[in-house]
Amino acid sequence: MNITNADRARILVHALPYIRKYTGKIIVVKYGGSAMQSEKLKDSVVRDIVLLSLVGIKVVLVHGGGPEITEMLKKVGKESKFVNGLRVTDKETVEIVQMVLAGKVNKSLVNIIQNNGGKAMGLSGIDGHMIEADFRDIELGYVGEITQLNVQPILDVIDKGYIPVISTIGCDRKGNILNINADTAAAKIAGELSAETLISMTDTSGILADKDDPSTLITKIDINDIPGLIEKGIISGGMIPKVECCSEALRGGVNQVVIIDGRTPHSILIETLTDEGIGTMFTKDRSQT
Amino acid sequence: MNITNADRARILVHALPYIRKYTGKIIVVKYGGSAMQSEKLKDSVVRDIVLLSLVGIKVVLVHGGGPEITEMLKKVGKESKFVNGLRVTDKETVEIVQMVLAGKVNKSLVNIIQNNGGKAMGLSGIDGHMIEADFRDIELGYVGEITQLNVQPILDVIDKGYIPVISTIGCDRKGNILNINADTAAAKIAGELSAETLISMTDTSGILADKDDPSTLITKIDINDIPGLIEKGIISGGMIPKVECCSEALRGGVNQVVIIDGRTPHSILIETLTDEGIGTMFTKDRSQT
Amino acid sequence: MNITNADRARILVHALPYIRKYTGKIIVVKYGGSAMQSEKLKDSVVRDIVLLSLVGIKVVLVHGGGPEITEMLKKVGKESKFVNGLRVTDKETVEIVQMVLAGKVNKSLVNIIQNNGGKAMGLSGIDGHMIEADFRDIELGYVGEITQLNVQPILDVIDKGYIPVISTIGCDRKGNILNINADTAAAKIAGELSAETLISMTDTSGILADKDDPSTLITKIDINDIPGLIEKGIISGGMIPKVECCSEALRGGVNQVVIIDGRTPHSILIETLTDEGIGTMFTKDRSQT
Amino acid sequence: MNITNADRARILVHALPYIRKYTGKIIVVKYGGSAMQSEKLKDSVVRDIVLLSLVGIKVVLVHGGGPEITEMLKKVGKESKFVNGLRVTDKETVEIVQMVLAGKVNKSLVNIIQNNGGKAMGLSGIDGHMIEADFRDIELGYVGEITQLNVQPILDVIDKGYIPVISTIGCDRKGNILNINADTAAAKIAGELSAETLISMTDTSGILADKDDPSTLITKIDINDIPGLIEKGIISGGMIPKVECCSEALRGGVNQVVIIDGRTPHSILIETLTDEGIGTMFTKDRSQT
Amino acid sequence: MNITNADRARILVHALPYIRKYTGKIIVVKYGGSAMQSEKLKDSVVRDIVLLSLVGIKVVLVHGGGPEITEMLKKVGKESKFVNGLRVTDKETVEIVQMVLAGKVNKSLVNIIQNNGGKAMGLSGIDGHMIEADFRDIELGYVGEITQLNVQPILDVIDKGYIPVISTIGCDRKGNILNINADTAAAKIAGELSAETLISMTDTSGILADKDDPSTLITKIDINDIPGLIEKGIISGGMIPKVECCSEALRGGVNQVVIIDGRTPHSILIETLTDEGIGTMFTKDRSQT
Amino acid sequence: MNITNADRARILVHALPYIRKYTGKIIVVKYGGSAMQSEKLKDSVVRDIVLLSLVGIKVVLVHGGGPEITEMLKKVGKESKFVNGLRVTDKETVEIVQMVLAGKVNKSLVNIIQNNGGKAMGLSGIDGHMIEADFRDIELGYVGEITQLNVQPILDVIDKGYIPVISTIGCDRKGNILNINADTAAAKIAGELSAETLISMTDTSGILADKDDPSTLITKIDINDIPGLIEKGIISGGMIPKVECCSEALRGGVNQVVIIDGRTPHSILIETLTDEGIGTMFTKDRSQT
Repeated sequence: MNITNADRARILVHALPYIRKYTGKIIVVKYGGSAMQSEKLKDSVVRDIVLLSLVGIKVVLVHGGGPEITEMLKKVGKESKFVNGLRVTDKETVEIVQMVLAGKVNKSLVNIIQNNGGKAMGLSGIDGHMIEADFRDIELGYVGEITQLNVQPILDVIDKGYIPVISTIGCDRKGNILNINADTAAAKIAGELSAETLISMTDTSGILADKDDPSTLITKIDINDIPGLIEKGIISGGMIPKVECCSEALRGGVNQVVIIDGRTPHSILIETLTDEGIGTMFTKDRSQT
Repeated sequence: MNITNADRARILVHALPYIRKYTGKIIVVKYGGSAMQSEKLKDSVVRDIVLLSLVGIKVVLVHGGGPEITEMLKKVGKESKFVNGLRVTDKETVEIVQMVLAGKVNKSLVNIIQNNGGKAMGLSGIDGHMIEADFRDIELGYVGEITQLNVQPILDVIDKGYIPVISTIGCDRKGNILNINADTAAAKIAGELSAETLISMTDTSGILADKDDPSTLITKIDINDIPGLIEKGIISGGMIPKVECCSEALRGGVNQVVIIDGRTPHSILIETLTDEGIGTMFTKDRSQT
Repeated sequence: MNITNADRARILVHALPYIRKYTGKIIVVKYGGSAMQSEKLKDSVVRDIVLLSLVGIKVVLVHGGGPEITEMLKKVGKESKFVNGLRVTDKETVEIVQMVLAGKVNKSLVNIIQNNGGKAMGLSGIDGHMIEADFRDIELGYVGEITQLNVQPILDVIDKGYIPVISTIGCDRKGNILNINADTAAAKIAGELSAETLISMTDTSGILADKDDPSTLITKIDINDIPGLIEKGIISGGMIPKVECCSEALRGGVNQVVIIDGRTPHSILIETLTDEGIGTMFTKDRSQT
Repeated sequence: MNITNADRARILVHALPYIRKYTGKIIVVKYGGSAMQSEKLKDSVVRDIVLLSLVGIKVVLVHGGGPEITEMLKKVGKESKFVNGLRVTDKETVEIVQMVLAGKVNKSLVNIIQNNGGKAMGLSGIDGHMIEADFRDIELGYVGEITQLNVQPILDVIDKGYIPVISTIGCDRKGNILNINADTAAAKIAGELSAETLISMTDTSGILADKDDPSTLITKIDINDIPGLIEKGIISGGMIPKVECCSEALRGGVNQVVIIDGRTPHSILIETLTDEGIGTMFTKDRSQT
Repeated sequence: MNITNADRARILVHALPYIRKYTGKIIVVKYGGSAMQSEKLKDSVVRDIVLLSLVGIKVVLVHGGGPEITEMLKKVGKESKFVNGLRVTDKETVEIVQMVLAGKVNKSLVNIIQNNGGKAMGLSGIDGHMIEADFRDIELGYVGEITQLNVQPILDVIDKGYIPVISTIGCDRKGNILNINADTAAAKIAGELSAETLISMTDTSGILADKDDPSTLITKIDINDIPGLIEKGIISGGMIPKVECCSEALRGGVNQVVIIDGRTPHSILIETLTDEGIGTMFTKDRSQT
Repeated sequence: MNITNADRARILVHALPYIRKYTGKIIVVKYGGSAMQSEKLKDSVVRDIVLLSLVGIKVVLVHGGGPEITEMLKKVGKESKFVNGLRVTDKETVEIVQMVLAGKVNKSLVNIIQNNGGKAMGLSGIDGHMIEADFRDIELGYVGEITQLNVQPILDVIDKGYIPVISTIGCDRKGNILNINADTAAAKIAGELSAETLISMTDTSGILADKDDPSTLITKIDINDIPGLIEKGIISGGMIPKVECCSEALRGGVNQVVIIDGRTPHSILIETLTDEGIGTMFTKDRSQT
């Protein structure tokens, strides 16, 4: 690429209206999948987040960590059982989950953000009892359903100038720690914070009209059209619960939800600060789109 | 130019360390010359300033307005006399100066900044008696030399979130309003504000070792080398007082002063947010460069 | 006058209940006419304003400048055309208006206030895009009608301890600058600020029952009685639009509007801090008078 | 007196520079003597104080109460013994002192200030343990000498917008309550608060060169000249301790101390807001006078 | 008693849930009776209050002073007349009341609190015109009925970190000072402050089902049951007005009102920080008990 | 134990002077050893901390976690090598350390504090890059020596009302995460925070003059006497580095350091809020003891 600094300046200037749109607002990023596995992509995500943070956008990072958990369980010789695609989580497993999410993934993310010039603080649903939950299904074990979300710790951390990085474990009233689905938590957090945008990073390029043809990407979906799209099989499989989280976030007060392809470098920045928009955006009201 | 959004994102990310460097700091821009005459260049300057402001940099704009003053004097049938290259400013002339600077140029700049999404407030040296001055030379008439600079009004306006746009007229203790050289005022203001950078826009590409060969641009000059460069004639003519203002700003506490070519679009952004740097930078200490 | 200091003390004490009434409240003064032409009267107005400001009243000064504009137009050899008593304002004229109001009159007022111990900052409707307007009538040219009034810049300036001095020029969305009637602007500003009082300085002693007999001054008029007084011809000519501004201010939330005689020295102080009251006061509700 | 409102306005304007001088500063008024015995004079003092408070001056009122104490002691059939002109204060007497000062005089003053539109809070040296003291002389009984002055309660009350009204009783470390001389306490309080002025109200017109000729009032005395004036007998009798308090206040950081005649109505206002000045002013440095 | 420090620690820990319950909340203590007559009990009450204050509870102390008033009246040879059990209060009497309450009792309490490590400021209903009142009954003389309660002075004093100690005298619009019943005032103050608890100290162990058998203490009474208990004679005599104050406080917004036995040392602490609860608690709603 | 509520009240009152001493000050608790292994002792420690926090003391909890780390290493089949008693920490081991400390121990402590009514937030040396470190000894692997301590994140968390719970892992400039000795970190943190007290919990009853006789506990040691005690063998073995941390904390600005026996329930509370004091206190200056 042969781009002059004059080009660079023009490009920065083109970002102006987008920066203005988001400045002072909250963007919740649900971070997981490939974007978290590749060091290069992780680096690209972190830089995007630090840049957004520097231009005055309040970014909240909610991360998962499935593969790291699986790897650690393997290490301790623990096999994962699944019921309906959900990991059965016994006492020992949830301890591993807690350690991997809040100890390893969370602090490592904080570390990379700091090394890229951001200011970050890692939180879990335990800190300030942010995520209160109940056992969801006795068969699944220590898997929680959020009963009360207290976003004050997130606001406190933002107020002190940090990017909050959040592990989605929760606690019940008896002292148990429970594993919480990160997509669900991110959607609820975004709603409770009245975030401007929830960006959900996935390993797909978004919702495709023809799942085998990336050129059939649906760029905008109204919340009311979701049931139809599920019926037609356009939204299917593992995408269904993700899309349901999108709906919930929109109903909870988030302005827009975007599913973007975490495999594309700088996908967050492309989505927020350029005129392209990538992935599929969900909105609540046709009149707003 | 065929630049993808992925390129754009990368370019934005490359601006990261520069944004970090300046965020929360003050940049004083002395704005004048060609960059103020051409509508297109004016637009490019204003967008640069609004962008810097949006990414958390505190920009203070100090403007001149020589050509507009000359034009207005012509309109009222007033001929300008010059003594040693300085305009003799009688009572009627200084009123025109006041009107053109604080009324026309200032408010028009504020208007364009606002139209580009910035938030600006126009100030003159009269507001809050920011610039107190004395007659400099009886022969020159209402031309002032700064005796006291009170930057509180600038800080107040910054604190309320506006970009201060400053006309350099001053007042003496007897109620007279005096014309103040904009380069001098900008240098003093930058010093008093302990600005990170003073950017002075000129109609040259900077200091050239061979004035006829633009490729001989000197990109960095230590304050101690200035006398030698004047002696050798490398800094000469109208550039001498400008460079002396640069020296004064550095001595007054500004970290670096840059003379940039106002004829290049987005020269402010190129200077501040890219790795190029354009024009000539003056610094105080070889060890710091 | 042979007044002892004991008398002086008693007089100061008599001002007590009036100071208490206004302390912490906003008084908008529409300043124009003779009171602005005579240096002595100008001095008296400014001292009144500084005193009110010192005793804790928030004064907002909105000024006109018709005669200065006419004089300047004359200087540049521009003749003023009038349509229905309103100046036709072409592009060149509005530039003169902008310069005279925001550059000359405004900054000169700020200068005098500062010289009398007040702290002032000059604003125009352009700063912070305070006054947004549209062309009022294509025939009249650059004459604007207020479409949106944003008083935040006024509040910001008050909050920082300055007396805001306001030139009534406005801007439209295309970047044009428009001339705005100062009476109308002052009324809207007073309304938007929920001012306690709007004081409008005129060159008459108020509304006279018999216009040739100053002893027939009507000291208080209820807003509902205005149409009747117009019908009877008691309010007539140039006073009609002024009185309509009064009505609008009252409807907009101002508690009382007073038309005072700017030709009387210290008329503002007499109106606000003594038991006399001069001129004609307009109020909204008979039950309040 | 036939004074027009125009005169009134001019008089208010003449107070401008004096208001400016004191605004935001602290004036401590030591209140006692005739000015406290006559209801009319009390009313005049209170109005002066409320006016000063309304124009932004922080007034601290320190009061005595000798005659009320004597009267109450008489009522309970207690005779006062004096040693060197100082009342011997036994346990029962100091209880009467405490009740009369902090209960009767203090609250009655607060009541009158409030009824005149001021906002006042009564304090004693006990509240927040403002005045810590020790027995001064065993023979005198419960008479204290200030050992530590903690002005925080005064500042707290000022900060909340009240005029502090202070009774000068103090406490020792063993729980005893002691009578404190009001002149001494006022001087120390003024010093500790770095008051601009301490005004001490007396029953004389000030220091007279010839004590029988009121026209020989000495209007200004430098602190260094006091010993000489005492030697010459010009300062004598009960005035000596008063003047020593003045000296101490000046040395403690007060800018000027004035002894004024409490028998003159509005003497406080005449002293502070007019060009007359009444009584005798003490200053620290000839060069400052 | 042989209590180890380990026991002490456990006891402190047991206070934890009670401290948590009250922390940051307001407790109004109506202080009078035996608890105010015995030095030892006074000491115990003050220590309780200082401790509550140190653990973050905002205590407001409202005191009476009947016996001290009676004693002082005796000293000045004034006999008290009573009408229906209420003291007839002439001008001279109310002055004694004012002196004893605001001068003696109030300041002495403040002194003891300070000596026990608390920070206190004494207030009366006169300060900041906190208690406005009217003559209640012409026959009773200077006895007031509260017409307006302005708790701002209390909040101001709390905000500055002091324990407010309040004498219940009030003022009318004509400048009269009136005696106010302390039980009534405490109830109103607690209501206006939305206190968590009003603790009323009496000389009984609470409401007894059989007034001769202390073991029949009724520990909790719903506000709706009060009329029935009065009818049955269980609440009778001087307890009736006290209980009516409790009702008023509950209706005014206080969460719970407790009548405790001031003769028991540390009864306030036992009531608030232990699981015992002493005396009789009044609550508004059976469902809450 | 047969302790009445009256006893309880008296005991609470006895804690008064101790609460006063610490209120608003910082106590750093280094938590580890037995006190962390037994659930009952953990509960007792947490309650102590919550109580201190409720009475206005700012507690900072720094925890270790050696046994949990060893256990986890065992689970993943990793054997620990030791060099001079220090664990050799390879890349895989430090990841386990990070997970166990920041993920398991930290969040579990936060959870228990919250369940006991405290408000806690877990931090590690990574958050806000609080602990910057360098490799200490290449042979030991990922074991760090603190190079820079940035306590701002701790202060931010305290300022928002949380008890900071800190895992002592650090980071170097290359992105490595390093294991940091908890005793050293706690000492440095206490110093940097100018803590009033550093409480270090151990599994001994303190320094014994005769190590086999608990009755020979030395209750106070001056910092200058430490070398002598080491020489005499009274301080020996694993206690030496602990005591050196105490010295460093004292030199760093901590007022007093106490080594207490974590095996005694409520030892923190006994040390801080009773007159006993347990364990050995270290102070800097004989004159202060």
